[in-house]
Amino acid sequence: VTRTLIAELSAKVGEQVTIRGWVNALRDQKRMQFLVVRDETGLAQAVAEKHDPPSQLNEQISALTPESAISVSGTVVADERVKLGGLELRLEHLQADSLAEPELPVAADSALDKRIDWRYLDLRRPDRRLIFEVQTTVERAMREFWREQGFIELHSPKLMGSASESGAELFKVEYFDRTAYLAQSPQFYKQMAMAAGFGRVFEVGPVFRANPSFTSRHDTEFTSVDVEISWIDSHEDEMAFEEAWLAHELAVLAREHGEEIEHTFDTQVVVPQLPFPRITLAQAKEMLREDDLPAPGAGLDLDPGSERALSSIVKQRHGHEFAFVIDYPTAVRPFYHMRHAEDQGLTKSFDLLWRGIELTTGAQREHRYEQLVAQAREKGVETGPIQYYLDFFRFGCPPHGGFGFGLTRLLMQLLAQDNVREVTFLYRGPHRLVP
Amino acid sequence: VTRTLIAELSAKVGEQVTIRGWVNALRDQKRMQFLVVRDETGLAQAVAEKHDPPSQLNEQISALTPESAISVSGTVVADERVKLGGLELRLEHLQADSLAEPELPVAADSALDKRIDWRYLDLRRPDRRLIFEVQTTVERAMREFWREQGFIELHSPKLMGSASESGAELFKVEYFDRTAYLAQSPQFYKQMAMAAGFGRVFEVGPVFRANPSFTSRHDTEFTSVDVEISWIDSHEDEMAFEEAWLAHELAVLAREHGEEIEHTFDTQVVVPQLPFPRITLAQAKEMLREDDLPAPGAGLDLDPGSERALSSIVKQRHGHEFAFVIDYPTAVRPFYHMRHAEDQGLTKSFDLLWRGIELTTGAQREHRYEQLVAQAREKGVETGPIQYYLDFFRFGCPPHGGFGFGLTRLLMQLLAQDNVREVTFLYRGPHRLVP
Repeated sequence: VTRTLIAELSAKVGEQVTIRGWVNALRDQKRMQFLVVRDETGLAQAVAEKHDPPSQLNEQISALTPESAISVSGTVVADERVKLGGLELRLEHLQADSLAEPELPVAADSALDKRIDWRYLDLRRPDRRLIFEVQTTVERAMREFWREQGFIELHSPKLMGSASESGAELFKVEYFDRTAYLAQSPQFYKQMAMAAGFGRVFEVGPVFRANPSFTSRHDTEFTSVDVEISWIDSHEDEMAFEEAWLAHELAVLAREHGEEIEHTFDTQVVVPQLPFPRITLAQAKEMLREDDLPAPGAGLDLDPGSERALSSIVKQRHGHEFAFVIDYPTAVRPFYHMRHAEDQGLTKSFDLLWRGIELTTGAQREHRYEQLVAQAREKGVETGPIQYYLDFFRFGCPPHGGFGFGLTRLLMQLLAQDNVREVTFLYRGPHRLVP
Repeated sequence: VTRTLIAELSAKVGEQVTIRGWVNALRDQKRMQFLVVRDETGLAQAVAEKHDPPSQLNEQISALTPESAISVSGTVVADERVKLGGLELRLEHLQADSLAEPELPVAADSALDKRIDWRYLDLRRPDRRLIFEVQTTVERAMREFWREQGFIELHSPKLMGSASESGAELFKVEYFDRTAYLAQSPQFYKQMAMAAGFGRVFEVGPVFRANPSFTSRHDTEFTSVDVEISWIDSHEDEMAFEEAWLAHELAVLAREHGEEIEHTFDTQVVVPQLPFPRITLAQAKEMLREDDLPAPGAGLDLDPGSERALSSIVKQRHGHEFAFVIDYPTAVRPFYHMRHAEDQGLTKSFDLLWRGIELTTGAQREHRYEQLVAQAREKGVETGPIQYYLDFFRFGCPPHGGFGFGLTRLLMQLLAQDNVREVTFLYRGPHRLVP
């Protein structure tokens, strides 16, 4: 059977076609039966005249339940009175591919947790589907940019022999007769690619955090986008890359989905001006204080509240939705972040804020073996379990840096969603492992 | 510093440039010093005249060790006597970004296991790097094809509340106060996307198998490429998709890397003719017997030996490198494979063989709830733990099917490598969790 998509119907007036989708609505009237069918491209009305006694087709239609999967064949007729695109399908044949049980367990206004219980029904809503169309496009746009700059794609292992970073929030795996750990990020491996001379790499893949929190921004598994670049002079090179890369993605999104996003989510896709503002963490705290807002003390990072506040101040003062906050103190950054030559208390690092939340953490990495080992010891990191990582720096490692980027956080802000669970295909949290 | 890639040098004759890469070789002679530098695009010679007493530059060069990461600046000079592209760099400045320790722990001819211990050094060899350039291209080509056909990209969870399939070869994760499992495939979730009305989806991501074997084809974590398509009429639709998709990828690879692959690995990228031969499993066994080769008995699957033998027979008889083996008996396929309406002992399934190994397993899935539950029970599958999966079929699920495809197996055959470990960025096996 050749399937015609509903979006293609307007080019098929007068032709016999088969459309395949779901029963969106059914009006079973005395003289006519109206069936609204939904597929991934839209809605269409199919009609059948009711006979007395009812024809076999009439009985088939009457037996349908909402959300059943069906294939309907008939002739496409133009009729200006029909709201759905001025077209309808004069029904000739119906096949119920899969009848839905009569009572649907969930509706659009059900609580989020309930909707996730029946995620596949939730995802049938066109606005939920749009989220994943947008995700597909944004990843494609990322890849276009990487391709033009000669990046290599990595698939680094998610099973590790020891912790990649702090050892906190780590999931343990029973691995034959020993213990493995799930990767919290591809950090060490993308640095290995630099030591391997790969030059520029990216990875899009799952990362795992045994974080017991239930906030709207946390989950135990999410898709991380990672970039690492060799032969940089400082973290400025990474920021220059990231802002150009993001502007490309947002330009593609604005072009391909801008109208639909505005119509569906009441929010605009804004293509940002380059460069994004750069604000040192010290300046950021000063800006908060100037606006009589609480600012974290010396040596402390911004908390989510101050990130939100800072984003609005930057919006006001610079008219910009993005802000790079740079030069975090050594105390709040991991041991492998490079320090400023002239100030060992500051790292060559950055976060990227967008619309009030942190999208990215990045830094130039320390690539000098002795310095790296010294920084690990100073931070109290046990070097034994990560010797394999330290070994990457023993036989000629170029200066390099990169960043990690949260895909779900991007989608959440882009589509004005209030919870990462809405923009994750299947959310995983401390109490959530199904479906 | 603006870095010039070695491949760009020929356009820079007479200019002052900086190249950044690794010390590939050093000849420290009486009157001249010759330095061969390697970056991700090639090799270049840099030369310095030796002064008496040696200049600071001379001393810097003499202190270099093989594989050190360096930045060298100088003027590009055309000289036909120079083997490396008829160009050399007259050295003016050298910066040792990271000196390698003098004794390299591994060489190109070291044993595979030793090379993996020092994988980043192994990956500096241009032929190893080419593997990952090819991987990047093949994934890009896959995505081009998916995009043209309106596919949505999935990122399905790798943490599951219960086994996805048999329960064998499953890794257990300590998940707060309970046990989670690592996904062996995105099978159930890509089917959920069909129930959600996503129509056509793909996923490229890690899968995990607690398989204790050490063969050249097995690992405990690998990159799976998964495709699922709704509204199919039979598994034939999936095979038609897959062969066109593969032909596209191989055409792109032949165009972009064909010469380099032939030169480096002494193997040709052959763009296949469509359609690929289809052979029922029963016919396949008959073909083996006709050639006096051992064939598996009734109700049994092909083993690796008979897969190799069958591939050569198909090559001889059909002149084709690919073969779809179809219609496997119910006994050797999972419960969710759809059965032929006219023969419940046969499934609507296929494997794809290429150059002697299995690249793909695919099938039309059973989308009718009652039938699916009956098949699970008949196979002795406990339905309690997978009720969440069975629920996908209760509220209108379209007919659908798909396949899983092993990226490393494709690369192994394409590049004539004899072990998946060679084409995996970092192999994971029962005894291998580092680096």
